[in-house]
Amino acid sequence: RDPLYRQIADQIRAGIRDGRLEPGERLPTVRVLAEELEITRLTVHKAFRELQADGILEATVGRGTFVRATVSATSSPNDPSVRLTADRVMADIQKFTGESGMRNLAHAEPDPDLIPAEAFWDCLVDLRADASSHMQYVSPQGDQGLREALSVFLESRGIQANPDEILVTSGVTQGMSLVAGALAKPGDRVAVEQPTYLGLLHILEAQGLRPIGIPLDPEGPRLDVLERVIAQDRPRFFYTIATFHNPTGQSMSRRRRRDLLSLAERHGLFLIEDDIYHHLAYQSPPPPTLKSMDRKGLEVYLDGLSKAVLPGIRAGYGVVSRPLLDRMLSLRRAADLCGPLTLQRALAEFLRRGCMKKHMQRILPIYRRRRDAILAALEETMPAGVVWTRPEGGFSCWLTLPGRESFGDLYRAALERGLVFAPGEVFLVDSDPRVHLRLCFGNRPEKVIREGVGILADLIRERLQGGKRVRSAIPDRSPLV
Amino acid sequence: RDPLYRQIADQIRAGIRDGRLEPGERLPTVRVLAEELEITRLTVHKAFRELQADGILEATVGRGTFVRATVSATSSPNDPSVRLTADRVMADIQKFTGESGMRNLAHAEPDPDLIPAEAFWDCLVDLRADASSHMQYVSPQGDQGLREALSVFLESRGIQANPDEILVTSGVTQGMSLVAGALAKPGDRVAVEQPTYLGLLHILEAQGLRPIGIPLDPEGPRLDVLERVIAQDRPRFFYTIATFHNPTGQSMSRRRRRDLLSLAERHGLFLIEDDIYHHLAYQSPPPPTLKSMDRKGLEVYLDGLSKAVLPGIRAGYGVVSRPLLDRMLSLRRAADLCGPLTLQRALAEFLRRGCMKKHMQRILPIYRRRRDAILAALEETMPAGVVWTRPEGGFSCWLTLPGRESFGDLYRAALERGLVFAPGEVFLVDSDPRVHLRLCFGNRPEKVIREGVGILADLIRERLQGGKRVRSAIPDRSPLV
Repeated sequence: RDPLYRQIADQIRAGIRDGRLEPGERLPTVRVLAEELEITRLTVHKAFRELQADGILEATVGRGTFVRATVSATSSPNDPSVRLTADRVMADIQKFTGESGMRNLAHAEPDPDLIPAEAFWDCLVDLRADASSHMQYVSPQGDQGLREALSVFLESRGIQANPDEILVTSGVTQGMSLVAGALAKPGDRVAVEQPTYLGLLHILEAQGLRPIGIPLDPEGPRLDVLERVIAQDRPRFFYTIATFHNPTGQSMSRRRRRDLLSLAERHGLFLIEDDIYHHLAYQSPPPPTLKSMDRKGLEVYLDGLSKAVLPGIRAGYGVVSRPLLDRMLSLRRAADLCGPLTLQRALAEFLRRGCMKKHMQRILPIYRRRRDAILAALEETMPAGVVWTRPEGGFSCWLTLPGRESFGDLYRAALERGLVFAPGEVFLVDSDPRVHLRLCFGNRPEKVIREGVGILADLIRERLQGGKRVRSAIPDRSPLV
Repeated sequence: RDPLYRQIADQIRAGIRDGRLEPGERLPTVRVLAEELEITRLTVHKAFRELQADGILEATVGRGTFVRATVSATSSPNDPSVRLTADRVMADIQKFTGESGMRNLAHAEPDPDLIPAEAFWDCLVDLRADASSHMQYVSPQGDQGLREALSVFLESRGIQANPDEILVTSGVTQGMSLVAGALAKPGDRVAVEQPTYLGLLHILEAQGLRPIGIPLDPEGPRLDVLERVIAQDRPRFFYTIATFHNPTGQSMSRRRRRDLLSLAERHGLFLIEDDIYHHLAYQSPPPPTLKSMDRKGLEVYLDGLSKAVLPGIRAGYGVVSRPLLDRMLSLRRAADLCGPLTLQRALAEFLRRGCMKKHMQRILPIYRRRRDAILAALEETMPAGVVWTRPEGGFSCWLTLPGRESFGDLYRAALERGLVFAPGEVFLVDSDPRVHLRLCFGNRPEKVIREGVGILADLIRERLQGGKRVRSAIPDRSPLV
């Protein structure tokens, strides 16, 4: 058997994995733990020291020993005992942004080279004439002028929204956070697609909400399951990315949209429609929004410009009926009081001048070619049995690996060979015996996409062939720091 | 006795006041309520209609009748049955900003005419050369360059902070929200000064935390009370505005700071130090920060530039040790993912160029004169028995009225005469038999300050003299919309 100190270390690891020990939690002192377990202090010391070396515990003189927050656990990417949580992977992805040599297929975000920086800066600079008026507090609901411009913009999505029903948010993330907080209390259940956006899962976890996964079929979420869940668990809302879904890239069929709305109406279920990817339609106009088909006002519509335009101004918004909107405004006052008026005014100008439309005409063909490139590379390199979605818009492609083998080290092995992708498990509420992963194709040029897919194909083939090393000509990047 | 429908309306009002009915909550249908109370539907209808007219309930066809969120209740400022909550008064204050004719002594915020708009815009414009690099996502912790500039800036406050310990937030509000969420769970108790910043009380309410008020004496919070509260209630943290306190304008003595720190160390109590007003020191340099005197790392330091510089860029930051910082970062990813890099970079430049220092030299004499003006006006006009603090910095002056009479309508009577101030009760956790109010003197020129104080003196004198109308020559503004 393992030495005693290692058994103790393993038990602490297990406690962290299954949530008995929380990030940031303080552990008993060495003395207390030694007495409790009837072992020597030295043994406890050794266990703590090993876990500290692994970045799992953290000790501060005079304060005690703590479980490190998940984010810090990225410092030991090779420790497979650390669970891949949504928060963890988000931190990884952030960390590897722009690291030279890293092939980044993890980011569902625009290519920095395709941002309309000049046009936006023109709008910003032109505000200068009346600069001080743009530097005040603004209502938590956001600048009136921006809400008017968004109201006009929404007509293209078939949505008739009064500026009073529009709430400007700090990215679509804040919209999700506020609506979840306004509709549900800690401990409440909520329904989400399985898989769904990992950031949303992180928000639910942070707010103590319990997600129930509604599996997707080719037309969208399975309504028979949703109806059963409504009856059994009374979820407070259903969150859906109906158009160019993240992570699958699929869109809900029109028939499924109609059926979902009528189900929601029948049961008084709030729908949260996250429409952030609709801007990125590569083949035909995006399908109609749920919001435009909704008659009862149970629908909350969220959108943001971080994907289609630029992330650095944190431009999101929602269309929400009262009284729910009032609750969200109250929560916003408690979250950050209000957004930055300066940027809201510049964005309003950007929309009014038609810069958005011009920008989309420029970038859509480029992203379409990247979508074509990833599908071609997958077709060319992937071993038989690997299947993937064929997105008509958005940034995500969803792979499913054959069989039920464990690909548990795939994520870390890819990091070592200079490829970062998002492992499927972080998008899932309930475990799935199959292995999935998400590849994003918007962020990087076609060469990087092809190399990344090639590395991944090698690694999958190795694992399917029982560990035999397979290496194509794609070079590794320099080792991880 | 009152007619039946009014009794029902009053019971619903009472339910809202004492929290049994929550904002946004759906009421039973007319039919259900009528059956339950064994009365006619018409009677329920009449009760609902009255409450709708008062802006307390809201009905949507096909969805039912709801308790309006508190913010909407501002539509009936003359309904004294609606409680003055922190959220409500914050919404009022926001509403009355810039309404012409309104004398605004409610805002603890800078004068729009004293904002360094030109200097900031220079910094923003100069980023253009590399515009697209400033328009990306940034780490939730904020731009590295800005954290380095803040680290240098903090030396002037006696704080040695590594950029890695600094967290850029969206205003100081987000700092409070994140640290409260990281340290406490719904239902937990926390200690605050009595009185304290109303925005903080709103944050605590939104997060389901239960504040315990620690009364202030002339030197600061009463530590005997705090020690008892620690023993009895195990508060998760103590939030303090040690320098130029809001709403009282007072500063904690040096001795009390030392004693507070040693108390916190003894009990392992987290201190949250909100230092946002230290920039605005009118007589001598501000007292030393708790953070600079702290040796154990139990201290969380928050600051923001919304008061001293400009609010519209939402510039706040915190100095926090790990592992607490990691938990706050995780919560930030769940709140809004990250802040706007564009503005963070411009602010870094603003600090690096020394614009902050120049700006403070320009504005401090102006704010000092306004502070002098309000103290002179109070001295001149207030009836005997009214007492007030003499702030050496910040924007707030705290009045206490004589006796224990009810001045319940003072807030609304002042609104009608064109004066908005913040009623003392929204800053209090526990009720206080005395009547307090906060006057802010930074936001408006001396003429407005003098008029506002004059109106207030009239209204107080009227009430002290048993309702006899007292009117000086100060004109009312146009009636409220």
